Amino acid sequence: MNRRDWMKSAAAAGAAAALPLDSFAALPQQGSGGRAKVETEIKRLNLRHTWTTTMASDTFRDVIMVRYTRDGVTGYGEGAPIIRYKENAVNAQKAINSILDLLESADPWEFDKLMIEFNRRVPGEHAAKAAIDIALMDWIGKKVNVPIYRYLGLDPKDTPVTTFTIGMDTPEVVKQKTLEAAPYPVLKVKVGPNVPDESMIDTIRSVTDKPLRVDANEGWTNKEDVVRKIEWLEKKNVEFMEQPLPAAVPLEDIRWIRERVSMPLIADEACTEAKMIPTLLQVYDGVNVKLDKAGGIMESYRWIKMARAYGKKVMLGCMISSSCTCTAAAHLSPLVDYADLDGPLLISNDPFRGVQYDKAKLILADKPGLGITLA
Amino acid sequence: MNRRDWMKSAAAAGAAAALPLDSFAALPQQGSGGRAKVETEIKRLNLRHTWTTTMASDTFRDVIMVRYTRDGVTGYGEGAPIIRYKENAVNAQKAINSILDLLESADPWEFDKLMIEFNRRVPGEHAAKAAIDIALMDWIGKKVNVPIYRYLGLDPKDTPVTTFTIGMDTPEVVKQKTLEAAPYPVLKVKVGPNVPDESMIDTIRSVTDKPLRVDANEGWTNKEDVVRKIEWLEKKNVEFMEQPLPAAVPLEDIRWIRERVSMPLIADEACTEAKMIPTLLQVYDGVNVKLDKAGGIMESYRWIKMARAYGKKVMLGCMISSSCTCTAAAHLSPLVDYADLDGPLLISNDPFRGVQYDKAKLILADKPGLGITLA
Repeated sequence: MNRRDWMKSAAAAGAAAALPLDSFAALPQQGSGGRAKVETEIKRLNLRHTWTTTMASDTFRDVIMVRYTRDGVTGYGEGAPIIRYKENAVNAQKAINSILDLLESADPWEFDKLMIEFNRRVPGEHAAKAAIDIALMDWIGKKVNVPIYRYLGLDPKDTPVTTFTIGMDTPEVVKQKTLEAAPYPVLKVKVGPNVPDESMIDTIRSVTDKPLRVDANEGWTNKEDVVRKIEWLEKKNVEFMEQPLPAAVPLEDIRWIRERVSMPLIADEACTEAKMIPTLLQVYDGVNVKLDKAGGIMESYRWIKMARAYGKKVMLGCMISSSCTCTAAAHLSPLVDYADLDGPLLISNDPFRGVQYDKAKLILADKPGLGITLA
Repeated sequence: MNRRDWMKSAAAAGAAAALPLDSFAALPQQGSGGRAKVETEIKRLNLRHTWTTTMASDTFRDVIMVRYTRDGVTGYGEGAPIIRYKENAVNAQKAINSILDLLESADPWEFDKLMIEFNRRVPGEHAAKAAIDIALMDWIGKKVNVPIYRYLGLDPKDTPVTTFTIGMDTPEVVKQKTLEAAPYPVLKVKVGPNVPDESMIDTIRSVTDKPLRVDANEGWTNKEDVVRKIEWLEKKNVEFMEQPLPAAVPLEDIRWIRERVSMPLIADEACTEAKMIPTLLQVYDGVNVKLDKAGGIMESYRWIKMARAYGKKVMLGCMISSSCTCTAAAHLSPLVDYADLDGPLLISNDPFRGVQYDKAKLILADKPGLGITLA
């Protein structure tokens, strides 16, 4: 992304609605002079392969990018709107523009308070919130010259490996994708009723016996089917299954499955708020935390710390995102068991260079903030 | 960190993983040279007034003080062992000494990992953990030249007022203490079966009509008594009640009370672990978070963020502590509804100068770390 793109979008964002005066914006600034400049841009990320899940089939995804500049320091943020929750990049940009005066006038050092206020004023729009929170934390980290993993007291050597996702496709393409994924020791497979699951798994197994993690994305509707499916998958070196049934099914249905299989079950679409985590963990074995779902680094940190209080599994996932979001998530990854942060590997026009993959192990640079650079 | 360093640490990490016992201390240091010096001292805090609760009557309390020095920067920490949980200062000091090599060799920037390891090696001993965590966060804040409230993204203007505690005593002394508490707009009153509650409240009410918060410290055993007591207190401008029944009573007993009175009920002794919070908040209206109970600033931060996920009330309390612990708690206080951080006001030999009280409102200095100085 070049400077001109940012300027262009900044001009469009300039028409910020006049906000009613409130105590927050009126408070005197602490420690930082002047105002921030908050620029947004809708960025189209092109996929290397057409991406098929039970929900959609696409060749690109639009994300919202944020550039937060204050005191000569710039923080970058990104949010990938989740279609499942009816979010899109245009509305994410509108959400940010609707509180632009707050974002530009508030002290970034009051980032906790600022995000609470964002949540109070704008319901939903988690991608927009993620983009702002990530940009703020990048700014904070740069300001104190500390990588975010260090800011949170974590050891970057503790990052897990990431899975590499094999999307649904024809057997020929699945086979080719699997071969291309040779450097990645664990694969994630999207399964569901729109493809013959068994043949998809068998196709992968015809090429490799490395561990698989399967994501049904709410694809099934019948708990008996799920148990049958899992019983079959348990013989195929599958480590766990994400979200077999729709998020809205009674938890008793998940418990019913839980009692009949040994494979761990991870909640993804079912988990959309911090307060759901303790309840979900009564039946699920873990939760999939995504920055775009929680609304940024610090809310994901809360989700992870809540799940950890129960000693259950935590997975860090991503949407189709650039190295901005995936690096932000990677900074939290020393706290989790499983990572699915392959976004940058799936796109062909990553605007950033960030987290690196050493045979799939996430490698974070010892650089301030996110530690990302423009590509 | 350059590529060579990464290779080096990857190699070291691989070797450490093979070690059966202690991979933590064997890992290479990140970013800080040398070792820390960790000094502990049992400090006797003298009370201005003899302190009576349903549990004990004392003229002093012993706390564990920690001084953490590394790279020329010193962080201070304090933990007040909670008698209720069978903790004492001697054992707290032993707990710290038992992992002294870890504490001195670990990178303080891996404070999250370090506290997880402390918890893994030493069960209980929350005062010891609080002292270490507070000292580490003081060190971190000083290292990046940022007050802890800022490090956590909070606005120091959002601090609440603290209550001032009136201990159980003869009517004459209670009356005198209440008069001395004139600057404090909200009083906390310890009640329980060992004193005639009604006369204690009536004595205070003979001098002032300011709001009261009452703490029963598990003093009653009978839920019918509690309802009767609360019905009486509801006419006396009492804002809420802490822990009316023993921590171990079935939550249904609290619910039974909850359904019969309007006064909010706050869990204190019942809440000893993060994972209890969502369950307790199904019947209690809030929780009392204490650094000495949770084990420091960052674990208290987790407790507060968990409770906040349910939109319930959060109180920050303290034991008999100096300005070290109470200032540490005050840094978190912009996140909470109620503060009971009067420790420094109750002792006559505070070793530190820290949080100030402006007509009971907590005032935090814009100084790095805790912002405390030796008295």
